[in-house]
Amino acid sequence: MSAQAAQRLGYAVVVLDSDPLSPASQITPFRVPQAWNSVAGTLELAASVSVITLENEWVLPSCLEKAEQGGCRTYPQSNTLQILGDKLLQRQCFYNHSLPSPKFRKLSSWDDAHQASTEWGLPLVLKSRKGGYDGYGVKIIRNAADWAKVDVLEPKEWYAEEHIAFDRELAVMISRAPSGGTAIYPVVESRQTVDGNRCDLVIAPAPSITEVAESMAKEIALRAVEAVVGVGLFGVELFAVGDRMIVNEIAPRPHNSGHYTMDGCITSQFEQHIRSICDLPLGPTDLLAPVVVMANLLAPSDGLFDLRKATAAALCASSDLHLHWYGKQEMRIGRKMGHMNLLGKDIQETISRAIAARAAFWKGLT
Amino acid sequence: MSAQAAQRLGYAVVVLDSDPLSPASQITPFRVPQAWNSVAGTLELAASVSVITLENEWVLPSCLEKAEQGGCRTYPQSNTLQILGDKLLQRQCFYNHSLPSPKFRKLSSWDDAHQASTEWGLPLVLKSRKGGYDGYGVKIIRNAADWAKVDVLEPKEWYAEEHIAFDRELAVMISRAPSGGTAIYPVVESRQTVDGNRCDLVIAPAPSITEVAESMAKEIALRAVEAVVGVGLFGVELFAVGDRMIVNEIAPRPHNSGHYTMDGCITSQFEQHIRSICDLPLGPTDLLAPVVVMANLLAPSDGLFDLRKATAAALCASSDLHLHWYGKQEMRIGRKMGHMNLLGKDIQETISRAIAARAAFWKGLT
Repeated sequence: MSAQAAQRLGYAVVVLDSDPLSPASQITPFRVPQAWNSVAGTLELAASVSVITLENEWVLPSCLEKAEQGGCRTYPQSNTLQILGDKLLQRQCFYNHSLPSPKFRKLSSWDDAHQASTEWGLPLVLKSRKGGYDGYGVKIIRNAADWAKVDVLEPKEWYAEEHIAFDRELAVMISRAPSGGTAIYPVVESRQTVDGNRCDLVIAPAPSITEVAESMAKEIALRAVEAVVGVGLFGVELFAVGDRMIVNEIAPRPHNSGHYTMDGCITSQFEQHIRSICDLPLGPTDLLAPVVVMANLLAPSDGLFDLRKATAAALCASSDLHLHWYGKQEMRIGRKMGHMNLLGKDIQETISRAIAARAAFWKGLT
Repeated sequence: MSAQAAQRLGYAVVVLDSDPLSPASQITPFRVPQAWNSVAGTLELAASVSVITLENEWVLPSCLEKAEQGGCRTYPQSNTLQILGDKLLQRQCFYNHSLPSPKFRKLSSWDDAHQASTEWGLPLVLKSRKGGYDGYGVKIIRNAADWAKVDVLEPKEWYAEEHIAFDRELAVMISRAPSGGTAIYPVVESRQTVDGNRCDLVIAPAPSITEVAESMAKEIALRAVEAVVGVGLFGVELFAVGDRMIVNEIAPRPHNSGHYTMDGCITSQFEQHIRSICDLPLGPTDLLAPVVVMANLLAPSDGLFDLRKATAAALCASSDLHLHWYGKQEMRIGRKMGHMNLLGKDIQETISRAIAARAAFWKGLT
């Protein structure tokens, strides 16, 4: 979606991917057919473009560093990715910048985790330092049986974090340009699937948020992005607990909780990202309607599908919905296959329509 | 832009084009590298897709017919293109369907044109039956010297039309699905460049249009599309003369005067086109703001360009503008290189901002 925004602005997009049918590979004829996290591939890419960006935060910082050393601009920069690619370093960075954080502890052994649980109480959260997402790489310790499950893991690859009984999850998209411009989107609420691990709905603006909370969330989010010297678009996730806000984590890229901006804001997060990394003036972040709801399309099963029937059913349910299907070749249960955006006037009415259209979509698919 | 709309909906797009750097070729890895108006290329394309559409009306109807005979759906259909690809047949079709038309006459010799000018008076309009656009293929006869200029042309390739001293040019985008659904966009005003030949600005909705005129324009436009049995999206151009409306012509594809819908309407003309040809439910055509202005980017000179500087200058002038640059490889004076959309509340203010941003753009480009 970033690539499409770049193309609209007239940029030619080169994709680094060995898969000719990945979502990004399907929308450009220009591709470096190498692994997306290889140094050789990154250098070949760097030789053919004027700026590099990424679509996931697992790109190795060392790859970006090599490109930077060769004189290619990469946004986010390798030092930003160095911090954000390791959730413990990210936590330490936020803590060092006095951002409101949960208690956390580096682990040399599982004894350190037990010690933390003694001090802070259960439940205790264990997070994988690298590679976690959507609930992968998070273990919640509630009892002795849960401890037994983690005993087989390597403690140094994890860290311990205080469990936050939050009221709701908020998110703020923030864009920063190399020459200093900043754009901050409205504070939105992200509602998770029943298992708590995946984003299900995003509601913009966050329902009944006070002006004070809105400003606080934006200020914390901006400080967090500044703490990691971010350039590009960043999704900042926050926990709201009573009248406190706690930084959960930052994604150094356009984020699922910012997909509502595609049809719901004057400037989409993807165009904003491209404007940032190309050091163009940033755009306004105003909503185009009183309410925008984004509903994720998480695969309900494995396998192939008949997309046309599903699309027709969803558009029958709500002809004004904006469907975005990512062109992934097959479904795997829980996989993010696409999303829907709906503009409306009333929060509950818009949510209901989004849920009904999504149900119609999945019914049509199978 | 149609291809991008299709990709967002999850369709894979195959382009028939021998040029690997044409605008459409730059946004998909799937290409049939043959001439876009060749039978062989069309049949190869037909073998790999479930529906064919076009981006210009000069595709030979015979190419589409071959694809149709092979069982491939093509929208618009070959019989629609047969009529619209010949401006005389188009005129005759509108006349046969009692649509308000200027007087017109088929020409066997230039004597027939002289006879028409005697009956209707000067100026007289001569139009090329095939291939004309943007003022190419239109000759206005005002005096004896003008007659001398056309004498060298083949009269059977032209037809004569009454000159209409219109007050303004209006346009309506209309989409029809194979199973009968219809979507009609707001009536817009199209303002031409000083030479009168190219679309310069489009203002949506048409300033101070009465409800009666709005309904009349929509009704005539719909009847015109029905007259040619159109499936897909059609741009209908109308002349407003006092309280009369006259059909100028129909483009059987998303149209320049509908580009405002990309950022200005719930459903863009391109998504609507894709929904039509894929027989999906059509979307609402409501404007997202009280006023939307589209400004064409017509190349002021030949040659290469520094796009980034121009984009930065335009976004500096108006950071909320939506820039669409088509990725054409070089400028030729007068060539449509892209367009800008601006949303606003006040017509004059929005037009002024669009013109200022466009001036900044061209200043930045060179």
